[in-house]
Amino acid sequence: MTTLVFGHKSPDTDSTGSPIVWAWYLNTVLNVEAKPALLGEPNTEALFMLDHWKLDKPEIISDVADDQPVVIVDTNNPAELPANINNADIRAIIDHHKLVGGLETKGPIHIVMEPLACTATIMWKIIGKDMAQMPDDIKGAMLTCILSDTLEFRSPTTTQEDKAVAWSLAESLGIDIPTYAAQMFAAKSDVSSFSEAELLRMDSKEFEIDGKQFRVSVLETTSPASVLDRKDALMAAMPAVAKEDGADEVLLFVVDILNEEATLLIPNDMTKTVAEKSFGVTVTGDTVVLPGIMSRKKQIIPNLKV
Amino acid sequence: MTTLVFGHKSPDTDSTGSPIVWAWYLNTVLNVEAKPALLGEPNTEALFMLDHWKLDKPEIISDVADDQPVVIVDTNNPAELPANINNADIRAIIDHHKLVGGLETKGPIHIVMEPLACTATIMWKIIGKDMAQMPDDIKGAMLTCILSDTLEFRSPTTTQEDKAVAWSLAESLGIDIPTYAAQMFAAKSDVSSFSEAELLRMDSKEFEIDGKQFRVSVLETTSPASVLDRKDALMAAMPAVAKEDGADEVLLFVVDILNEEATLLIPNDMTKTVAEKSFGVTVTGDTVVLPGIMSRKKQIIPNLKV
Repeated sequence: MTTLVFGHKSPDTDSTGSPIVWAWYLNTVLNVEAKPALLGEPNTEALFMLDHWKLDKPEIISDVADDQPVVIVDTNNPAELPANINNADIRAIIDHHKLVGGLETKGPIHIVMEPLACTATIMWKIIGKDMAQMPDDIKGAMLTCILSDTLEFRSPTTTQEDKAVAWSLAESLGIDIPTYAAQMFAAKSDVSSFSEAELLRMDSKEFEIDGKQFRVSVLETTSPASVLDRKDALMAAMPAVAKEDGADEVLLFVVDILNEEATLLIPNDMTKTVAEKSFGVTVTGDTVVLPGIMSRKKQIIPNLKV
Repeated sequence: MTTLVFGHKSPDTDSTGSPIVWAWYLNTVLNVEAKPALLGEPNTEALFMLDHWKLDKPEIISDVADDQPVVIVDTNNPAELPANINNADIRAIIDHHKLVGGLETKGPIHIVMEPLACTATIMWKIIGKDMAQMPDDIKGAMLTCILSDTLEFRSPTTTQEDKAVAWSLAESLGIDIPTYAAQMFAAKSDVSSFSEAELLRMDSKEFEIDGKQFRVSVLETTSPASVLDRKDALMAAMPAVAKEDGADEVLLFVVDILNEEATLLIPNDMTKTVAEKSFGVTVTGDTVVLPGIMSRKKQIIPNLKV
């Protein structure tokens, strides 16, 4: 049976590109029949990657069948995976997030998790000398994943290993990183076609802090004004999104990639308290700027207090 | 703060030796201050290993403090770890069992799990060229772990990688594997000093099958008669052990290493049903021989039916 390789729901670039990379590795190097899949519509930056490197858009699946062989990449969180995931035949997990707990396997499997910025960097290390066989379109996907997850090396999650792999790929592809990253971020910043509810869910993960459920949404953009111009409509959409998704609050962080800061929307007193307790700022209006904050994983989640 | 490296409760050879190997690697190669620890008294084979290679017996700890840096090896099951484990600072997990779920980390960490017979084999792969620095006593621990977990390559969990690493270590140490393994298994088989309750808990893991809790105990021995001579007393001790440990039944498999078969004790109708449904045998007395059954992980647990 063909092995399905997929990342998390609401696919970003890493969750779209890394399954393509790993499916290539399984098919070409390990002789295991595999294909990449998506758990939803990829974001605009991921679509740019597919278009730029002329890669087929993976099929979007809604669930997995019992005993379906799967490889999970870029997450280990059952909440971000198909409902039936623990009845699938999980063959491997490659991830760079904290261990959440909840996934179970029927027997011992391959699991590699490393505190690197990007799943694709871990794959590069595993693939090793077989990188020599990798065609340019797959290398392009890998490079795009790393530049996306590191925000072109600006994110504090960036490690020397992520940088070294990206530089090596860019050199081999003849890509100028600043030019290419600017194209990627422009694609990601073009969110005009999305509704407010879609924006709130685009890059969003749920976390429980002191018994409260937060939907922590991040919009990384080179054009924060185009999002912040819609702040009233975004705040108006929050209660319905929170309710539908079983959360108590939506926290929307608009990350300004170029100026390396985040703007947090403050729709109510609860959010104001969270902002002040978590980031040591004083909130006066309906937004607050958080200098240097770029990473949900490394800077937002570990600091959240209610 | 010194990083503590430990395996599971009821330490066998791998859970005693692998922490010693990894603490050596952290201290000597990675310059991270570390020491091995034990979560209980090691079994007689593990004690033989410590004695043979003149290794200090690691300190036995009962729990870990909040934020204590730890590396977990040879398990990922919170039930086999200190009660406070999820409040410790888990730095890495190296394991070869199925993913159980339940461990959580505060941030991304190093996790390597591979379907190999032994944790020490995974460590050998990670340590790589730095194996050149490893002293003989640590190599000896590594070899003992692999021969123990593979039952000298007889267990169906054995992979080519486990064999290759063991052969390489034995050659470097000038060890004759059959002679050394016979000494190890003789040490493991000398269980005369243990009470029945101790034998039932010596190498035992709890599993839930169809809503029933089973304590699945395995005694690997080159002298099955010395255990089976005590079968009446062992069966008599089962109800109290099950009750104290919150289990419904104890299943004791006496694994005959040399003849590559297991004898399952049948104290009651429930156990009889489990034996017949799980292994396709007909039970007539108070024991049943299961030819070829040597591995709890690979042959017993995946087949258990109620």
